[in-house]
Amino acid sequence: MKVHYECLSCIVSQSQKVAELSTSDVEERKRAMIKAARFMGKHFNHNAIPAVVGSEVFLTLYEHLGNNDPFREYKVKSNLLAKALAEDLRNRLDLDLKSALKLSIAGNVIDFAVGYNPEKIEEDIIRMLDEKLHIDESEALFERLGNSKVLLYLTDNCGEIYFDRLFLEKIKTEFPELEIYIAAKEGPIINDATVEDLLKAGFQEIGTVISTGSRIVGVPPSGLSSEFLEVFRKADIIIAKGQGNFETLSEFKDGRVFYLLKAKCPPIARELGVPRGAMLCVKP
Amino acid sequence: MKVHYECLSCIVSQSQKVAELSTSDVEERKRAMIKAARFMGKHFNHNAIPAVVGSEVFLTLYEHLGNNDPFREYKVKSNLLAKALAEDLRNRLDLDLKSALKLSIAGNVIDFAVGYNPEKIEEDIIRMLDEKLHIDESEALFERLGNSKVLLYLTDNCGEIYFDRLFLEKIKTEFPELEIYIAAKEGPIINDATVEDLLKAGFQEIGTVISTGSRIVGVPPSGLSSEFLEVFRKADIIIAKGQGNFETLSEFKDGRVFYLLKAKCPPIARELGVPRGAMLCVKP
Repeated sequence: MKVHYECLSCIVSQSQKVAELSTSDVEERKRAMIKAARFMGKHFNHNAIPAVVGSEVFLTLYEHLGNNDPFREYKVKSNLLAKALAEDLRNRLDLDLKSALKLSIAGNVIDFAVGYNPEKIEEDIIRMLDEKLHIDESEALFERLGNSKVLLYLTDNCGEIYFDRLFLEKIKTEFPELEIYIAAKEGPIINDATVEDLLKAGFQEIGTVISTGSRIVGVPPSGLSSEFLEVFRKADIIIAKGQGNFETLSEFKDGRVFYLLKAKCPPIARELGVPRGAMLCVKP
Repeated sequence: MKVHYECLSCIVSQSQKVAELSTSDVEERKRAMIKAARFMGKHFNHNAIPAVVGSEVFLTLYEHLGNNDPFREYKVKSNLLAKALAEDLRNRLDLDLKSALKLSIAGNVIDFAVGYNPEKIEEDIIRMLDEKLHIDESEALFERLGNSKVLLYLTDNCGEIYFDRLFLEKIKTEFPELEIYIAAKEGPIINDATVEDLLKAGFQEIGTVISTGSRIVGVPPSGLSSEFLEVFRKADIIIAKGQGNFETLSEFKDGRVFYLLKAKCPPIARELGVPRGAMLCVKP
């Protein structure tokens, strides 16, 4: 997916968030935003991919501001709350494969770190399980899982990964022969999960945890590790969570990919031809 | 005032609004936003003045999008509603000079075109008359008006001008010897009042209506007409409404200027050392 017209203001607002989280010095923040303006002036082009140009400007600011992980606290909070919620839901609900899939999409929706009542979040999640997916190719996904040898699961955000874990546990139980790879980012970028986050969440008990080799959100067209590329090539099915993975992979029209996401912003909704806010299990 | 760190995202968001108001074609909007990114990359520098760099990028987009006045409808709506409200308030309230001054600040606060209940707006305005100004140099302003020969009144937005009119009527009654000039923009720029708007509102009955000679918001460092500069030089007192006039004039620390505004955004509040939302009658 190429940038849409709304992507500039979104990336600039997120850059401001990076500056605010990294320093309380308003002059430092101003220097960072001037840097962000220059970067966007050069790289916000017709063919730019939003997740890529966004990640690049954020990493430029990380370096400029001397903060390698401005969202650290936010991510720790998200992981803590999501972990507790996922464990509670695992005990409370009798999850089947389909509801575990929906739970993993719900995990993509929730902002765990906003600090509102965990019970309220749990209610929201359970309500989402009753919602219909706007596009629902889950039957094709499950069928393909049954016919596949190698699954590559591309994670998205911290917090959300604990819901991915529930889904992957179900997949492992239903398809015990499947070779499972779970990928995350090489290092911190906004609130995306890193390999370290996956290992802390125990994903190595389910499959092989790998890095994309990159800190760019999604699966960018360059900078991927050869280890990741090898797994990417041999996978029979790829489950890609969230907008960043969609933005980067949708370029390739790869029939092995199933996207699980909520269309949170107008560009993604427009690109997919769905209403904003729609929950989707969709393949190209 | 130089740009603060938040100005980039604000100007980019307003640029997006310009694109949205000018065309429904998302590809056209995208080309406009790429243009905006390039412009900001070049001109969002340490010493840029927010009102100036903002106006410049908007005018670039107006030209690119072939729309000379994207806010036309918004401004017509604002003027219509504010005119009716101001007439009602003139009849209903027994205004003195001070409350007329506060009313003109209230006019700077209200978004007349949002379309909520006019009665509700009127209530809000009357409530604002009871609010204390956070910085109140109105006594010095009135004293100076008494000692002055020439007043230059710099207007800000459409809608608001009908409240400026009430204030200027009071000034004219109290200081009948005063030579009054009322200035507006040379042509359309966002929702700022133009000379045409002032003439429609009958300001020529109060004083001499003049143009700054420029479409840049405020009183920019270049591009002013010689007619405006002559009046600017000879004025003994200058009343400057709103943030744009403050941003451009505060550079000069001109003791003749009184700013009437609400500190709507964090940069203005920070620059003036007041809480966000404060209503002010302040001189340098």
